[in-house]
Amino acid sequence: MNIHVIGIGLIGGSMVLDIKSLHPDATIYGIDTNENHLAEAIALGVIDKAATFDDLGTADFVIVSVPVDVALIVLPKVLDAIGENTIVFEVGSTKTPICEAIANHPRRRNFIATHPIAGTEFSGPSAAIRNLFQGKTNIICEVEKTTFKLQEKAVELFKSMGMRIRYMDPKSHDKHIAYVSHLSHISAFMLGKTVINKEKDEQDIFDMAGSGFESTVRLAKSSPAMWTPIFKQNKKHVVKTLEEYISNLSKFKDLLINDDFEAIYNEMQSVNKIKEILNGMKK
Amino acid sequence: MNIHVIGIGLIGGSMVLDIKSLHPDATIYGIDTNENHLAEAIALGVIDKAATFDDLGTADFVIVSVPVDVALIVLPKVLDAIGENTIVFEVGSTKTPICEAIANHPRRRNFIATHPIAGTEFSGPSAAIRNLFQGKTNIICEVEKTTFKLQEKAVELFKSMGMRIRYMDPKSHDKHIAYVSHLSHISAFMLGKTVINKEKDEQDIFDMAGSGFESTVRLAKSSPAMWTPIFKQNKKHVVKTLEEYISNLSKFKDLLINDDFEAIYNEMQSVNKIKEILNGMKK
Repeated sequence: MNIHVIGIGLIGGSMVLDIKSLHPDATIYGIDTNENHLAEAIALGVIDKAATFDDLGTADFVIVSVPVDVALIVLPKVLDAIGENTIVFEVGSTKTPICEAIANHPRRRNFIATHPIAGTEFSGPSAAIRNLFQGKTNIICEVEKTTFKLQEKAVELFKSMGMRIRYMDPKSHDKHIAYVSHLSHISAFMLGKTVINKEKDEQDIFDMAGSGFESTVRLAKSSPAMWTPIFKQNKKHVVKTLEEYISNLSKFKDLLINDDFEAIYNEMQSVNKIKEILNGMKK
Repeated sequence: MNIHVIGIGLIGGSMVLDIKSLHPDATIYGIDTNENHLAEAIALGVIDKAATFDDLGTADFVIVSVPVDVALIVLPKVLDAIGENTIVFEVGSTKTPICEAIANHPRRRNFIATHPIAGTEFSGPSAAIRNLFQGKTNIICEVEKTTFKLQEKAVELFKSMGMRIRYMDPKSHDKHIAYVSHLSHISAFMLGKTVINKEKDEQDIFDMAGSGFESTVRLAKSSPAMWTPIFKQNKKHVVKTLEEYISNLSKFKDLLINDDFEAIYNEMQSVNKIKEILNGMKK
């Protein structure tokens, strides 16, 4: 089995690590514009060898795991280069633009639009880890536009990595993911900014920040190169989530100013049910 | 050694678990208005026996670990009841009101104002865990107002639990902690609210929320009974942090609306240094 991964970072790298464990006979080819990442990926055993687009004709699977703006350019070229039975999937955090970009490509039916909802705040080949996808959800969009046998093979691969499958249209995906993922990132980045701006003396942050701040701000370590194009592509929904978030924060602030601590208590208590929702995630 | 803990939850319970490990001969007495918590704490081995304020005369240490509004009422009564060499410390997340409340108490010099910056989002006796304070910072306020020998014994105890000590005046503590702790909690609660309000179908949150959302929203599981009085007591600083946070979020939203993605990239990149700051925390 020939697996090609284009963009060898957290998601693509972790995927091929799992595939290699599941299929020790598979050969993992890597394509990356960053030569250092290629060398690093080989040294780390994430890929077996470097490849080029000319090699894609013999690929069984091609994983496109690049920033979402780059994907719009790369994916049509990948579809131009693949063989008849190659399955291509892209793993970015926005799905409408990519589905539109290749809607009329002659090889559309070789493509399956996915969003494996998994990750860490790290990036690059060294961020690749085994079992990243165990128990996680993979959102598949427009499955009806993929050849039945090819989507079947892809779903089998995802399931073998431990993923649950959920089908969704790209527009619904992009709207929901703005709330449960994109907003969290902005919330963390701006929390980090507010604290850094205030605490000019970083020693104070060192000394006073507990594990609560650490987990709330964790996503502010994420890669701007990956996240800027996500916010760009999902601008409409992200702006809306931000408006709602800012409005909720402002109302909370007003309750404080008006000494309405009973309402503050009730606000917090009603959000406490997030506990059960998150526990549900782990089931 | 006689240790009395008033309010047997996450912080007080975890402290006496550590003290019992370090001093197996110590007797741990618990005082709690919640009879179920007392029984649970005994069953879990967090305390040895239940006690009352009348027993405080023979205490070596009294730990006051109750919501910060309750502390204002309880602490003077504790100081009324203790012996000459008893050391009392309170562990809440605001320090100015408590220091003011007992400023003129005849036993002021038996009291040491502390804030061990450690915790989880859980509460009650079952939240008590060993080694919670290992490597964490304990902020001590107005140390000069405590009898030298007594503060020395308290600091020795804190260090034996693995804590670093930092001295600070109560007003500075309350201002800084609003940024690195109180704001994180409101940010998480309002993130949870925004997502819950939108995603009426909780299944969508289950399916689409990844570990990023989970860590950013974690603090929204925290106890309203504990946090409402903290926000009340530290209202002035908390409102200010919220104003700055809302302003930063609004500016980020405007950059999105104006398609200034270069500025968005730069914003995120400049906050990325939180990585080194948090790594510093772990040293």
